[in-house]
Amino acid sequence: MHKIIFDTDPGIDDAMALLFLHRHPQIDLIGVTTVFGNAPIDLTTRNALFLKQEWGIAAPVAQGAGVTFDQSRPEGHWPTFIHGENGLGDIHIPERIDAQADARPAWQFIIDTVRAQPGKVTLVAVGRMTNLALALKADPDFAALVKEVVVMGGAFGLNGNVSPAAEANIHGDPEAADLVFTAPWRVTVVGLDVTLKTVMTSGFLAEMAAAGGAAVQLLSHISQFYIDFYRRRVGDGMVVHDSCACVYVVAPELFATRSGPVRVVCGGIADGQTIQKPDGRVFPPGHWDGHPSQSVCVDVQAERVLEVIRAAIVEGRAA
Amino acid sequence: MHKIIFDTDPGIDDAMALLFLHRHPQIDLIGVTTVFGNAPIDLTTRNALFLKQEWGIAAPVAQGAGVTFDQSRPEGHWPTFIHGENGLGDIHIPERIDAQADARPAWQFIIDTVRAQPGKVTLVAVGRMTNLALALKADPDFAALVKEVVVMGGAFGLNGNVSPAAEANIHGDPEAADLVFTAPWRVTVVGLDVTLKTVMTSGFLAEMAAAGGAAVQLLSHISQFYIDFYRRRVGDGMVVHDSCACVYVVAPELFATRSGPVRVVCGGIADGQTIQKPDGRVFPPGHWDGHPSQSVCVDVQAERVLEVIRAAIVEGRAA
Repeated sequence: MHKIIFDTDPGIDDAMALLFLHRHPQIDLIGVTTVFGNAPIDLTTRNALFLKQEWGIAAPVAQGAGVTFDQSRPEGHWPTFIHGENGLGDIHIPERIDAQADARPAWQFIIDTVRAQPGKVTLVAVGRMTNLALALKADPDFAALVKEVVVMGGAFGLNGNVSPAAEANIHGDPEAADLVFTAPWRVTVVGLDVTLKTVMTSGFLAEMAAAGGAAVQLLSHISQFYIDFYRRRVGDGMVVHDSCACVYVVAPELFATRSGPVRVVCGGIADGQTIQKPDGRVFPPGHWDGHPSQSVCVDVQAERVLEVIRAAIVEGRAA
Repeated sequence: MHKIIFDTDPGIDDAMALLFLHRHPQIDLIGVTTVFGNAPIDLTTRNALFLKQEWGIAAPVAQGAGVTFDQSRPEGHWPTFIHGENGLGDIHIPERIDAQADARPAWQFIIDTVRAQPGKVTLVAVGRMTNLALALKADPDFAALVKEVVVMGGAFGLNGNVSPAAEANIHGDPEAADLVFTAPWRVTVVGLDVTLKTVMTSGFLAEMAAAGGAAVQLLSHISQFYIDFYRRRVGDGMVVHDSCACVYVVAPELFATRSGPVRVVCGGIADGQTIQKPDGRVFPPGHWDGHPSQSVCVDVQAERVLEVIRAAIVEGRAA
């Protein structure tokens, strides 16, 4: 069993990833931490609590950061054209939600949970890296106690999606991401190089909804807004960014990776760009020296990833 | 006939490119301008004059910049491990060279020559972009009178060669390159994406030398130091970076290109990185907006490029 804390900013593809983590038989979802990104922090937290309640998720939800790690960064815009005004595709969400958030901030929840089960907990972070960076700042030693960190973010051999250089999650908090990638723990980065290849057609999702009951129907309902956004970009379907990172935990063999230190550009025209120095490449002394090698996903067996998602969400089984 | 000013920092692969330009029947080499880079400016100018004399090149040589466009940049190191202490593979070069440099600085020579034949002159720049930037600064209107600019430099879909982000020519003067790429003229960028695929084996060069007489034997002699450097990187052979840019002028059909504005990162960990926004890709308002689309080479028919080089240098004919 993989014990997972899911750090997320729901967010439509976040919702799919959350249902995947909840239903996969080899995953024990032990916490959900929220972060700002796809919507402001009050909305992403509300959305996480709504989905916890609707889907009967036992794991506690802890609210995380609402501003960047470097608080002097100017506030960005919310991607309402992708995730809707409410972050969940503008479906109706009841005003009153009974589920309550954990009293601790996300960074504290993460530290406490990892320290209670040293070496056992995987962090899957699919929003900005702010909560992880705050945890590292508060307790640098806890990094060594984390089993693994899997990040959805970055773009290595291709353009970003919020600028020619940068992907949204990293661009949303570059200083936090740079701290996470250079910390002494094992990070796997699942970026646009593989997620853009992993497109779930609306027909595939509709079949999942037809076979999967009310929970999957809610997921499908939420996802229509996102599918409309992607129609102009990838044709009929949705890029399942965040689920890719979750699938990596249970089926890493579906991903090709490259090893080497990863840094994030902070400031300038390439703000938020991720750059890896592949191990074995020799350069003059520079900014990548002395940092741990991390794994960057460079290719994916996308059809098999989609089947892993379907099997877990619809049938509650490992593919 | 292509009228060409060759802006160069000889430099070993520069020497091959110079002989190519001199011997290709469809190229009229009307000027050589020197720049610092592979060696200090006094050496690259001396080397250009030496090759002019040895090879009987009629075109004048004008000395160019010895420091970066932004003079506050710290001085870098000379790549003596690639081009030798003297910039030409440490072959013996006589102390006295009869050929004399033009009295004008390179930027002035470039402006004067272009203005004398408006719309007719192609600039092929295979070193740092400093001279071109100085010309643009002195006479912004001359850009519109240049037929085409072909640059060897940059790395787009892969790591650089002086850092994980940056290629040497652009890294050596990022502000100059950014000015050149965003000026109102037509630029084609021939970067590592294609040059690293274009490897001339030592056997290929030896056959050229055997068939091509004293001039090619000198070229081969100069190149051995460079081949030794590349042996650990690409096996037995040399990457003919600068000749690729020259071949592009006469055989653009051997290159696949992508269109879009190009910017250069100035400062930070990605200093000197080239980033293109492909035309047709939509991003939020940003640093690529309002700049002209330039052509970036993304693929090459390398064997045919090598044959174009051989045919010109050995036989003095177009392939």
